[in-house]
Amino acid sequence: MAGEILVGEYLFERLRQLGVKSIQGVPGDFNLTLLDLIDNVGDESFRWVGNTNELNGAYSADGYARVKGLSAIVTTFGVGELSAINGLAGAYSEHVPIVHIVGMPSTKAQRTGALLHHTLGNGDFGIFVEMNRPVSAYTTVITDGAEASKAIDEALTICYRKARPVYIGVPADAGYFKTSSDALKKPLEVEEPENDPLSEQEVLTTVVEMIEKSKKPVILVDACAIRHRVVPEVKQLIELTHFPSYVTPMGKSALDETAKYFDGVYVGSISDPDVKERIESTDLLLSFGALKSDFNTGSFSYHLSQQNSIEFHSDHMIIRYAYYPDVSMKYVIRKLLNVLHPQKCQAKAAPVLGYHIKPKHASGYTENDITQSWFWPKFGEFLKPKDVVVTETGTANFGILDCRFPPDVTAISQVLWGSIGYSVGAFFGAALGVRDSDTPDRRTILVVGDGSLHLTATEISTCVRQNLKPIIFVINNDGYTIERLIHGLHAGYNDINTQWQYQDMLKFFGAKQSRSYRVKTPQEIEKLFKDEQFASADVIQLVEVIMPKLDAPRILVEQAKLTSKINKE
Amino acid sequence: MAGEILVGEYLFERLRQLGVKSIQGVPGDFNLTLLDLIDNVGDESFRWVGNTNELNGAYSADGYARVKGLSAIVTTFGVGELSAINGLAGAYSEHVPIVHIVGMPSTKAQRTGALLHHTLGNGDFGIFVEMNRPVSAYTTVITDGAEASKAIDEALTICYRKARPVYIGVPADAGYFKTSSDALKKPLEVEEPENDPLSEQEVLTTVVEMIEKSKKPVILVDACAIRHRVVPEVKQLIELTHFPSYVTPMGKSALDETAKYFDGVYVGSISDPDVKERIESTDLLLSFGALKSDFNTGSFSYHLSQQNSIEFHSDHMIIRYAYYPDVSMKYVIRKLLNVLHPQKCQAKAAPVLGYHIKPKHASGYTENDITQSWFWPKFGEFLKPKDVVVTETGTANFGILDCRFPPDVTAISQVLWGSIGYSVGAFFGAALGVRDSDTPDRRTILVVGDGSLHLTATEISTCVRQNLKPIIFVINNDGYTIERLIHGLHAGYNDINTQWQYQDMLKFFGAKQSRSYRVKTPQEIEKLFKDEQFASADVIQLVEVIMPKLDAPRILVEQAKLTSKINKE
Repeated sequence: MAGEILVGEYLFERLRQLGVKSIQGVPGDFNLTLLDLIDNVGDESFRWVGNTNELNGAYSADGYARVKGLSAIVTTFGVGELSAINGLAGAYSEHVPIVHIVGMPSTKAQRTGALLHHTLGNGDFGIFVEMNRPVSAYTTVITDGAEASKAIDEALTICYRKARPVYIGVPADAGYFKTSSDALKKPLEVEEPENDPLSEQEVLTTVVEMIEKSKKPVILVDACAIRHRVVPEVKQLIELTHFPSYVTPMGKSALDETAKYFDGVYVGSISDPDVKERIESTDLLLSFGALKSDFNTGSFSYHLSQQNSIEFHSDHMIIRYAYYPDVSMKYVIRKLLNVLHPQKCQAKAAPVLGYHIKPKHASGYTENDITQSWFWPKFGEFLKPKDVVVTETGTANFGILDCRFPPDVTAISQVLWGSIGYSVGAFFGAALGVRDSDTPDRRTILVVGDGSLHLTATEISTCVRQNLKPIIFVINNDGYTIERLIHGLHAGYNDINTQWQYQDMLKFFGAKQSRSYRVKTPQEIEKLFKDEQFASADVIQLVEVIMPKLDAPRILVEQAKLTSKINKE
Repeated sequence: MAGEILVGEYLFERLRQLGVKSIQGVPGDFNLTLLDLIDNVGDESFRWVGNTNELNGAYSADGYARVKGLSAIVTTFGVGELSAINGLAGAYSEHVPIVHIVGMPSTKAQRTGALLHHTLGNGDFGIFVEMNRPVSAYTTVITDGAEASKAIDEALTICYRKARPVYIGVPADAGYFKTSSDALKKPLEVEEPENDPLSEQEVLTTVVEMIEKSKKPVILVDACAIRHRVVPEVKQLIELTHFPSYVTPMGKSALDETAKYFDGVYVGSISDPDVKERIESTDLLLSFGALKSDFNTGSFSYHLSQQNSIEFHSDHMIIRYAYYPDVSMKYVIRKLLNVLHPQKCQAKAAPVLGYHIKPKHASGYTENDITQSWFWPKFGEFLKPKDVVVTETGTANFGILDCRFPPDVTAISQVLWGSIGYSVGAFFGAALGVRDSDTPDRRTILVVGDGSLHLTATEISTCVRQNLKPIIFVINNDGYTIERLIHGLHAGYNDINTQWQYQDMLKFFGAKQSRSYRVKTPQEIEKLFKDEQFASADVIQLVEVIMPKLDAPRILVEQAKLTSKINKE
């Protein structure tokens, strides 16, 4: 019969249309026949890329989605999906769109309640979907071919719009059910629908009025501006208004940090004092995609009046104390670009100090120590436009705040969910996403501490296997420095297995062409950063950076004090 | 005030009393102050042992519990507990008692619903407990000092009795609440209470009657006989009756396989034909601790009449078609030992064929290939009494069925939950449990396929760090052979990263004293097995065993056909 297609084929074709090229995950007996259908898509660039385990796979899917806009991971019932669940919780928390496809026992086996392997032994086949529900924007289990295409379209649309994981259960037989292929003729309309015009008009009028009345407005860009895809619009707004612009830790890399109107990173009370003063004395804060978590706000230490704020969000607006549901910032900003008066705005734009951070040696250490306050600004000098930089929850996520990016860098980190080990998986996915993109020559660079690397190191072998050529900086500072600062400065539980021979890692993972470095002094780093072959990233490279055990980025030191206090309250 | 103690101290002291010496897990900021209290127990052998990640930690806690009877893992809120959850689901499914202690945000932070890191960003601090509930026999969050000691005792008792994980949430401040220490004076009474005498008497009378009437009774021992600690009683029963005795795959190692009345492994239709005939023609099956999952029963292919069965379970009995709730097998067997008449039983005991499996070369391969049908019986010859043998879900779990154990071997595998990668974590925990036991000189031996090793390899570095001296056999057969047999014989998704240089692994992980071997022929294995230094396990050792990609143990080949069929139905 014409116009029919297998459910699995439908699903993969839709993913291809949405720009996904690599389907990640781990094979398991309940998903094998589904994986066969990847080849049926008939596009050589659309393919299976296996991870070393499911948690790494979920982290990797997260990194891929942050580069490519959407990603997909296939796991198997029970064991696989639960192994991945922390990675998906992170994506849920941080607004990253991942399609989680779970191969399940056949619909018949489920009906009989058989005591299959990968079950809890109680005949309950629905329990894992339930466990996934809190970390999924939508869940569906395909049990009917006729309904499948609609259910898949619904899942993918929600995934994109909410920028959060969705869960699609595919029983072993259901991937081969027939479904209508008619909808495939046109791409799925995933973009949010336009706002209600009356509601939007009220918002727009009020926003324009407030901007016109304001004397020294500033712009603050946060995570959800990136995740809900309004960065181009926000950049245009800055270009039009010249308003001084800032990012939060989770918003870092959204703006061009070398641009004229860029003025730094705002982290509440632990910001650079100049930045803090300039933002907190504003009479109008235009906030885009705020996600006010503890580490993103210096433990909620914003000193800003709600009376002077306009919050732009993906599905609502908050103007002063008024909440406007279902008004999407994307369309508001677009209209704002048409109605604002450039000269008038520019006239009230305060001049900026700019974002200039010089490497400096930390007190208490010698000039031969690589301290955090020296390393991060220096690392910024090494970066090139369009680099993809992945940093780990730990010293790196705080250090990177003192690193000025060249234009068009993509920074990836997990500040809210903060799962250690995340960066290694995410970095592989990011590198894969770069390869699958229109600009495959971008460098992908990871900075991870030795403590975190231990959790997920095997995914570096997937980089090797996929012949990717990233640069991996391993900060070797003898364990969990971030935890030491929060609590247990010298406690044994913050030590790790310090015997790993990082210089042998790429070789152990089978890299045929690779380079590994070990740097102990600023001079050695300077030399390495000037090495053109190193900078060209022609093979996979690992740099072990020896840093003092208790030295940490300034902002982390401050944050750790705040966190320790909250934990003790 | 006298008679008070900190909640965390109470918890750790109770664990110490129950025989736990190593508290495993990964530090995270919400559990750090709790970890400080481990030292307060004041027993040098009671200590923190960190894992490389939480999933490995949960697998390791599972292995530790299977050796030591109970284990404990500490994770941190959200990120840590969700990373561990698949390992705990496995323990729930397979009846393994693990105390899962989760460091949470302080009670105050929880009350305010703050947007802390490691949250989903929705102010819901209860959601992760909810997600853990389906894989926990009991969950509690400590919010009140006065109630804490009772809640902890309740949790530990249930953990032991149900032989399943329990979840204890400890907010950062709650570990330092004061609670009564009075109960600590005597050890917790964790043993099940005695059965109701009337109910038990009826059961006993019926069982004795059926045994007396039977002509050729047999005994079948399964997983829950081990997990619910009745193996000594069952062994006495066999000694008393001489009834031919069998184990299921999950019951393997429960019985002495060199003993007179031991007759083999029963896996339903895919059993050795003699075994199948002898069991299925019985007029009375005495089944102990049955757990009838697919891989444990040859996909439910028991051909046994319920009319001829007595099922002994931890908390109920099933006699023919009658269900007796709340009758624990332990006390029934103990009484049975007193009332059965040895001579009468022995008179009706059929002679056994015994369990003798010779190494033989598989057809289609040369005598220079290490095939599964040759390897496993040979591996059995290498084993010593009291060895702890851990096998992976994959070829190893099926191969081990053709391996005759010397007395008192402890076999560890995960046949029902079947999460690949499990064995590497479990094996570390088992080795740690051996070290913490009264017989620390036992060898711990792992057999894992290369496919599975990729998921959890980092935990081998924890073995190195803890200076354990296990033997690791890596079956290098180029990927997921078990999956190939179920589906996708030559599919790319069943390939893995074949470039790992296993010979470099221990060195990469920092082992100062280690030996690594690579064996490609039966002759090389013979030689290695005869090497006394190797057999003495004086340092950590790794043996890479090169085996043909598509060769598999006979029982796996049969099982894979059945599973493939069920998946396609």
